[in-house]
Amino acid sequence: MSANAEQHGVDSGSLPHTVAAALPQIEAYMATVVRLAGAPPALEQAMAYATLGGGKRLRPLLAWHACMASGGAGPESLPAGAAIELVHCFSLVHDDLPALDNDDLRRGRPTLHRQAGEAMAILAGDALLNHAFGLLADRLPPTLALATIRELADACSRMIAGQVLDTLGFEGDPDASEWDDAARLERIHRGKTGAMLVASVRMGAMSSGSAEPASLKALTGFAEAAGLMFQIVDDLLDVTQTSEHTGKRTGKDAEAGKLTYPGVFGVEASRRMVEEMRDTALRAVEPFGEEAEGLRQICRFLAVRTR
Amino acid sequence: MSANAEQHGVDSGSLPHTVAAALPQIEAYMATVVRLAGAPPALEQAMAYATLGGGKRLRPLLAWHACMASGGAGPESLPAGAAIELVHCFSLVHDDLPALDNDDLRRGRPTLHRQAGEAMAILAGDALLNHAFGLLADRLPPTLALATIRELADACSRMIAGQVLDTLGFEGDPDASEWDDAARLERIHRGKTGAMLVASVRMGAMSSGSAEPASLKALTGFAEAAGLMFQIVDDLLDVTQTSEHTGKRTGKDAEAGKLTYPGVFGVEASRRMVEEMRDTALRAVEPFGEEAEGLRQICRFLAVRTR
Repeated sequence: MSANAEQHGVDSGSLPHTVAAALPQIEAYMATVVRLAGAPPALEQAMAYATLGGGKRLRPLLAWHACMASGGAGPESLPAGAAIELVHCFSLVHDDLPALDNDDLRRGRPTLHRQAGEAMAILAGDALLNHAFGLLADRLPPTLALATIRELADACSRMIAGQVLDTLGFEGDPDASEWDDAARLERIHRGKTGAMLVASVRMGAMSSGSAEPASLKALTGFAEAAGLMFQIVDDLLDVTQTSEHTGKRTGKDAEAGKLTYPGVFGVEASRRMVEEMRDTALRAVEPFGEEAEGLRQICRFLAVRTR
Repeated sequence: MSANAEQHGVDSGSLPHTVAAALPQIEAYMATVVRLAGAPPALEQAMAYATLGGGKRLRPLLAWHACMASGGAGPESLPAGAAIELVHCFSLVHDDLPALDNDDLRRGRPTLHRQAGEAMAILAGDALLNHAFGLLADRLPPTLALATIRELADACSRMIAGQVLDTLGFEGDPDASEWDDAARLERIHRGKTGAMLVASVRMGAMSSGSAEPASLKALTGFAEAAGLMFQIVDDLLDVTQTSEHTGKRTGKDAEAGKLTYPGVFGVEASRRMVEEMRDTALRAVEPFGEEAEGLRQICRFLAVRTR
């Protein structure tokens, strides 16, 4: 346990029990959504490999606890949480491809293209993205289905834009010539990871059926700060941890010459930014009562996680 | 003009004027949908390159004329037609990738990955697929939006399944051991091209706001036959035409050892199948009046097209 983790009374290796209690239901639900009637078994297997491989389920958990913070019970968020997780898994599969980040290891196992070939990784990623929308349309009441589809399409579009900037840079963008590295970094990460984390919280809150505009706004503020914090921690882990510990290749950002928080601001300043972002996120949900405790605990955990 | 074309009074090089009259509106609408607020210019350019590059617009035209056949005026089909076209273009971009069909030429120009690199082709393809759903959710009335999103997700899932079978074969599928080449071929193509052509007609008809279940069923029958016919013609063109004429690499199916209609049934039998499928499709829309004339003309044209 790190000093930072001890300070918050959280085991940095795992989520608090009260927060993680939803995981079995999330996992069971995920297993039901990757069955595709009539699909070739090899495609279904590839989709399952990419989605049932022991991810943290951070996004469905955020959706679950944002649903609770908005007066829901939690399980109403399962379709939204699963759809976001499908999109998250699709993005990992495509980002790992040789033409992008060229990663061989993900969650301690071979990446999908190492396991099933590049063609299958491209196609299974496509199928996961597509399936996320079908899932929302099929499993939610009409108004909620449409509202969450809009959120998801918008967040996914921002995520892809962030990935384009992260992988290919800002070339050809006349506006970007005025931005320094810090501005570029924020732009990349608000898209690449931030947008989908914000969507997790918003779609989960919407799933409660009782989220007021003001509380949705407060939750969005929470998610924006927590999302940026999540990425800074990710960049720090890439510098400070071993592959064996995180289950994915580390040290790769520097190797690829990518903009990172420790690279731009230094390790110490990045650590301070993590604490600032954590506090900003927690302040955003101060008006909420006990029912937002899950979100607060996730936020504190994300500040001290070590993988 | 081929003998076959003369027989139907159709110039085999282009669509009849009455059918093609919708093209300027379709083209103008397509140009409005690939603008993404806040996206990196390079991503928007790649999406535009892939979607505004002079395709036949067969799918939006089918949607338009199915809308008319169902009592609509035509333009109501534009969002549905554009969404299908985005998915079609995404599928071409990903299918052309080195790990899949490895094509350098599409519509007489370099494929997107030859033009903008593999990473951008993967990401722009993802963005096009995602954007299709956002488009339907944003631009259609709620009930129609949700119904067309369901159709599109289902059709796209079948299309990807067909592409998996076409590229990677039937390995790992216990059912497939009993299927002969003809059964496999039909299964590949009902997915790979058929599903999206059926969706074009169905989503166009639904866009009219007045498609009855019985007429939707008849139009589905039309599209299934016309879709299979389309693919048989495609396979025949791959054998009989030059790249220069079709604007894409030809002779590649045989080279890749793929199952094709001429390969399994021979050229002459494949030509007879084209005529049979054309007649089946036309019979399906016999009960419709003058307003289905556009669909009939598209069907006759597709039977004799040479590119």
